[in-house]
Amino acid sequence: MKKLVLTGAAGRLGSYLRAPLAAMCDEFVSTDLRESVQDLAPNETYVKADLADLDAMVALLEGADMVIHFGAIGDEAPFETLLGPNFIGAYNIWEAAYRNGVRRVVYASSIHAVGMHRKTESIGIDAAHRPDTFYGLAKCFAEDLASLYWDKRGVESVCMRILSCAQVSNSRAVGSWLSYDDLIHLVERAITTQITGFSIVYGVSDNDRAPVDNSGARHLGYRPKDNAERYAKEIFAADGPLDPHDPANTHHGGAFSAVELGNSGVAQMKLNAEDTGKS
Amino acid sequence: MKKLVLTGAAGRLGSYLRAPLAAMCDEFVSTDLRESVQDLAPNETYVKADLADLDAMVALLEGADMVIHFGAIGDEAPFETLLGPNFIGAYNIWEAAYRNGVRRVVYASSIHAVGMHRKTESIGIDAAHRPDTFYGLAKCFAEDLASLYWDKRGVESVCMRILSCAQVSNSRAVGSWLSYDDLIHLVERAITTQITGFSIVYGVSDNDRAPVDNSGARHLGYRPKDNAERYAKEIFAADGPLDPHDPANTHHGGAFSAVELGNSGVAQMKLNAEDTGKS
Amino acid sequence: MKKLVLTGAAGRLGSYLRAPLAAMCDEFVSTDLRESVQDLAPNETYVKADLADLDAMVALLEGADMVIHFGAIGDEAPFETLLGPNFIGAYNIWEAAYRNGVRRVVYASSIHAVGMHRKTESIGIDAAHRPDTFYGLAKCFAEDLASLYWDKRGVESVCMRILSCAQVSNSRAVGSWLSYDDLIHLVERAITTQITGFSIVYGVSDNDRAPVDNSGARHLGYRPKDNAERYAKEIFAADGPLDPHDPANTHHGGAFSAVELGNSGVAQMKLNAEDTGKS
Amino acid sequence: MKKLVLTGAAGRLGSYLRAPLAAMCDEFVSTDLRESVQDLAPNETYVKADLADLDAMVALLEGADMVIHFGAIGDEAPFETLLGPNFIGAYNIWEAAYRNGVRRVVYASSIHAVGMHRKTESIGIDAAHRPDTFYGLAKCFAEDLASLYWDKRGVESVCMRILSCAQVSNSRAVGSWLSYDDLIHLVERAITTQITGFSIVYGVSDNDRAPVDNSGARHLGYRPKDNAERYAKEIFAADGPLDPHDPANTHHGGAFSAVELGNSGVAQMKLNAEDTGKS
Amino acid sequence: MKKLVLTGAAGRLGSYLRAPLAAMCDEFVSTDLRESVQDLAPNETYVKADLADLDAMVALLEGADMVIHFGAIGDEAPFETLLGPNFIGAYNIWEAAYRNGVRRVVYASSIHAVGMHRKTESIGIDAAHRPDTFYGLAKCFAEDLASLYWDKRGVESVCMRILSCAQVSNSRAVGSWLSYDDLIHLVERAITTQITGFSIVYGVSDNDRAPVDNSGARHLGYRPKDNAERYAKEIFAADGPLDPHDPANTHHGGAFSAVELGNSGVAQMKLNAEDTGKS
Amino acid sequence: MKKLVLTGAAGRLGSYLRAPLAAMCDEFVSTDLRESVQDLAPNETYVKADLADLDAMVALLEGADMVIHFGAIGDEAPFETLLGPNFIGAYNIWEAAYRNGVRRVVYASSIHAVGMHRKTESIGIDAAHRPDTFYGLAKCFAEDLASLYWDKRGVESVCMRILSCAQVSNSRAVGSWLSYDDLIHLVERAITTQITGFSIVYGVSDNDRAPVDNSGARHLGYRPKDNAERYAKEIFAADGPLDPHDPANTHHGGAFSAVELGNSGVAQMKLNAEDTGKS
Repeated sequence: MKKLVLTGAAGRLGSYLRAPLAAMCDEFVSTDLRESVQDLAPNETYVKADLADLDAMVALLEGADMVIHFGAIGDEAPFETLLGPNFIGAYNIWEAAYRNGVRRVVYASSIHAVGMHRKTESIGIDAAHRPDTFYGLAKCFAEDLASLYWDKRGVESVCMRILSCAQVSNSRAVGSWLSYDDLIHLVERAITTQITGFSIVYGVSDNDRAPVDNSGARHLGYRPKDNAERYAKEIFAADGPLDPHDPANTHHGGAFSAVELGNSGVAQMKLNAEDTGKS
Repeated sequence: MKKLVLTGAAGRLGSYLRAPLAAMCDEFVSTDLRESVQDLAPNETYVKADLADLDAMVALLEGADMVIHFGAIGDEAPFETLLGPNFIGAYNIWEAAYRNGVRRVVYASSIHAVGMHRKTESIGIDAAHRPDTFYGLAKCFAEDLASLYWDKRGVESVCMRILSCAQVSNSRAVGSWLSYDDLIHLVERAITTQITGFSIVYGVSDNDRAPVDNSGARHLGYRPKDNAERYAKEIFAADGPLDPHDPANTHHGGAFSAVELGNSGVAQMKLNAEDTGKS
Repeated sequence: MKKLVLTGAAGRLGSYLRAPLAAMCDEFVSTDLRESVQDLAPNETYVKADLADLDAMVALLEGADMVIHFGAIGDEAPFETLLGPNFIGAYNIWEAAYRNGVRRVVYASSIHAVGMHRKTESIGIDAAHRPDTFYGLAKCFAEDLASLYWDKRGVESVCMRILSCAQVSNSRAVGSWLSYDDLIHLVERAITTQITGFSIVYGVSDNDRAPVDNSGARHLGYRPKDNAERYAKEIFAADGPLDPHDPANTHHGGAFSAVELGNSGVAQMKLNAEDTGKS
Repeated sequence: MKKLVLTGAAGRLGSYLRAPLAAMCDEFVSTDLRESVQDLAPNETYVKADLADLDAMVALLEGADMVIHFGAIGDEAPFETLLGPNFIGAYNIWEAAYRNGVRRVVYASSIHAVGMHRKTESIGIDAAHRPDTFYGLAKCFAEDLASLYWDKRGVESVCMRILSCAQVSNSRAVGSWLSYDDLIHLVERAITTQITGFSIVYGVSDNDRAPVDNSGARHLGYRPKDNAERYAKEIFAADGPLDPHDPANTHHGGAFSAVELGNSGVAQMKLNAEDTGKS
Repeated sequence: MKKLVLTGAAGRLGSYLRAPLAAMCDEFVSTDLRESVQDLAPNETYVKADLADLDAMVALLEGADMVIHFGAIGDEAPFETLLGPNFIGAYNIWEAAYRNGVRRVVYASSIHAVGMHRKTESIGIDAAHRPDTFYGLAKCFAEDLASLYWDKRGVESVCMRILSCAQVSNSRAVGSWLSYDDLIHLVERAITTQITGFSIVYGVSDNDRAPVDNSGARHLGYRPKDNAERYAKEIFAADGPLDPHDPANTHHGGAFSAVELGNSGVAQMKLNAEDTGKS
Repeated sequence: MKKLVLTGAAGRLGSYLRAPLAAMCDEFVSTDLRESVQDLAPNETYVKADLADLDAMVALLEGADMVIHFGAIGDEAPFETLLGPNFIGAYNIWEAAYRNGVRRVVYASSIHAVGMHRKTESIGIDAAHRPDTFYGLAKCFAEDLASLYWDKRGVESVCMRILSCAQVSNSRAVGSWLSYDDLIHLVERAITTQITGFSIVYGVSDNDRAPVDNSGARHLGYRPKDNAERYAKEIFAADGPLDPHDPANTHHGGAFSAVELGNSGVAQMKLNAEDTGKS
């Protein structure tokens, strides 16, 4: 692998990925809106750039083998707020990849693309889109974009529907947790798998209570190792019994399944109690 | 029904719908980008307005029971060209519907949301999104938006995936034709069905060779009457044998399945040979 | 066919079936709790008997080819009230059939065995049990009993899940109506089909908006002819718009899907407004 | 259509097809093992040839647009007996088609490829192979051959799984009948459909009790018109009640489902009682 | 957890559960038909009570958080014998739970609810009811009751379809064994899972040859640890080859799949040879 | 187990199986076309015999409990070349088994029976036949034969669809590898499972990237232990990026999915680069 590009490199998850990605290639380019980032790897170049700027993205991806696309607003927000970074930004990445002959987009999709399904119904990678927020709607959009660019232009994609990659601090996370180690493993598999075409996979650790089914994505070889069950007893005790009729408890999207559309204030409040820094 | 609003009223399909819709309500509002339209019904008001203008849409839908949303660019085009009318325009319609308490959006979706499936595989209303163009991608986006507004805000939708509503002029249309009468019948059912929640239905006539399956949408009571088979012999003779490896022949999207993304020129050329005025 | 037995012969649906059944066999026995019924056919014998009395049922079915089992309380009621006629009564019929070598039980099951599914999801004959009432629970019980007696004792059954067999007087019935003629046709097919094993079929007319799928029961040859669509316009106008979040409107069971368990008072009230005399 | 070739032209079904096929093309070649056939159409050439002779088949198909392959032993028989005409013969047809650039093989497959499924379970075109005889095994073989030649060599096929094309003379045929008119219609559709790739379709009339599901083959536009129901009453009375545990009654293959493998004697005896002249 | 109630506490499985359940709550109530049980835990109260007595059950469940319902006749028996404890008893538990605001019923369902499916067909939690005995029919009834009380009254349930919880003493048990440790683990997960709604899960250890699929119940986090494979060689040698056409060998229900309905004598005899003390 | 027979005993895989099979029975017969084999086990008899000779096979299987059928040409070849050993040979084995009352055929089927499915679509044991070569077509034929002999004659079968059993020497094998130890384990399970009826199972190790799903074959208890992932890094580096539009890379059959039919030369060349000695 000669060159990899990571978007959203200054974000919470992006920060964790910089070092492992740098170790996988000759030349590593990280990018985000911030002026600079700390602790550059020897082969890393950081570029400040706006996802909503197609020309910048085309320049950024020149000569890249793959782009790992984690850049976006990581919270529910009004549609107008997400339009630039989350919708147009996604288009710009796939289009820039195509124009540069980049082989694959490894994409941080999210459970929120299908967050309105119920957790008592285990969902596979073929679950119908059922977004829980504008944030989730942008993930649906990007997945359909990925399908289109594969079918019509031969750009491969791996859409990793991350459940919740943060400390395990509430009942939902006992099922939905993706550890940082498993995140890195997943991204590594998404990159090294020889052929992916258009693939979807859930990003979740090997939790006893993980409510999703990756059996349709065997070709990616994703085998997580961590398990949030060790936190279950303490967290369940702290949370106490939950209302079985509140979508925040019953649906895959958790707090996102219950929040008012566009309401980043309420979402953030619930997120604080939930898993701080939703992918 | 007190008030209905039709977008895209000056378009080819919109023009056919104005009279029947006017007959179904007390107050009928038609809208498009054009300055005016001919032959207003007695209860019809035409309003020039831009779908991409949210305030205009909110004003337009005030007091409406339902909106019939046919407005959009009706051809493949660069993403940037479709962004305003087809993507943002869709958001504006659902958001304006929500703000005004409009019960339902009856939406002209399209087979191009799933156009990269093969016609030898009959697809139902639960077929995974597999857009064939940016045009189809916008249909996917609007369907997911419809799902979201139903789940989170209680706005109902009927997404009518129209196959091809035009004269039967090529081999594909022998299967994909939606007659104008059946279109009107379908829209009428989408409006009068008491409860639709979030529903999808294919818009196609009762063609012998119609390659899609509406059995999941029985509650809508759509029963088309026309059948393109009467044109089959002549058209097949005119077309001669078709290449079984050309996506334009094998995939549900027809010419759209083969066209280069964003290429409205090539698309239009193929459309001329196909069914002139694709929904 | 030498001998047929009809239970529930004095009930609303049973009354309609007496004459056609009498015409299909040499000896016709009708039974119910009432002392007598009017207008006996020449080959008809009426026997007052209690479904909850196994000995009586065994005596009644002696020498019968088939039993058409419509006897039961036809309304929601407390479990204790339904236990005798609807649960034990069903057991008695299958057991009496077995002891007498009766070939088949043609059973008036009901949509209420699966009434908590949503009407926007068309259900087939393989839909999971999801009863809406104790009344529906008794139908589930009898269907499972039918499965058991076929698998272990070779007694055939046709479980006809009747939707609503009464005049079309509300919005739900526009989809759920089973006309009397189609009921008679369905019972006739359930009897004359050479081999049925354990079969399930929905009892509904050929309504445009019939929300269920009989494609898994092709071997029975049920082809209804009536269509409630002719009542749609008037009824929808009378009902006005319906609340899309009320289970009475959204679920297959209609009023039964919303009524309190065991509450025959409320159920009856809703039934009056709905379809008076639910199977 | 310039040239069509029909194998099995002297057989019962082949004889019915000669005239309609001759009318569909400029040059019609019919072939069988017999020395000659009667009533040649003006554009028809009859060639005596052995299916088991590859060179003969290659010569026969030269310049043909399509081959309609009905030639085979039409009865159960020992494997060794069927090996030449039914297995090797099928290979020779597809191979000869490939070598000559013939576009499509229209193949008389049979319900006996899936005859061990139960009739109370309606089967679609995606039912797993479950042959009931060596005869049915040869149909499975030819279908897999058809799949292979499409995937690897681009030769199209339509595998018509004929149920029973003969007079309606027993209970099974009330469901399984394919009238001669519907057979001709089916073959015509299999020929004229523009693109078929590898397609499967059941050959059965529009019988009320037809136990198979063609909804996966909509693209072929097969719409049968005849219905064996008109014979039901008389035949059921003649047959009397059937044993519900005899595979001949319960399985799709009828008598073939019960016959000993290779036993053409027993099979013929049962066939006499059944539908004389099984496809 | 303040208060848990266990029915069937003097039964074989109930006896194993008393200590672990007592350790999970402040107040533990155990109940059965026997006068008393040995070795009460410090926080345990034993109450003699009859499941068929609704008032007794209502009194028993007062203030309980959950009820673990293992009480029933644990063998095939005539329907009349099972009616009180297994059918009415189940109703009484759910009704008493509802009246007392008990959150959840953890129910000892059984493989015998689906025992007439074949073991060569792996079944998931969505397998259709197919009871093998009256005993299994009662399990079907209780599962449907559980579905009803969740849908209409918000009482949660976990229906644990136990395969065979006893020493591994025959060939079937090599696949169907549920160890006592895994039973305790399963019950613990059924209690501690935050939201269950209406859930079904198979109770079976991590046997190499376990013939059922719990992938639809991931949210419960059930991860068994034991494996009956260590007994396989010895038991297979002792049993010798089995008849592949005996339902006792081929169907999920084992001996129950072959026993005459209601025949507790024969069943017991077979059970002795099988796994003594069927759940 | 008194007597086992192994065909193809001199082949690559057969050679590995001789010792373990000899250890499982009193009398072990190995057979192949070669004059003799080395290192006979004490209870082993080697018999030179031709699969295409039915009488020889009938003699060979006399008194056998089971036959392990690995004999066939292990490469793509012209149909005529495979006809004897791979097609007729398979028939002879099942027929000889039937005539001798042999209980079960344990058969070396192959992924090439379904090799034209895509690896990004994980396939289960119910995947439709989709052969990639004449070699794969013979596997389809034998599987259907196995189905037939079970349904009609009670001969059991386990069809092991081996992916690739050889050293891990290319990218495909990282997913498709079956280690020799796992092969032996699989064969052992296929033999010792008490009841198999007609069963299919994929023969693949516990590779992270194994692209097939054995969850429908739980009753066989196959639990592989090896994992080719340890070779992944080195092999992927050696292979470099692969063309995502070459069937050799994208389809389950690997090189077989891309090779010309019948072309053993090209196939061998690709096999050399792949996994040398395809099952």
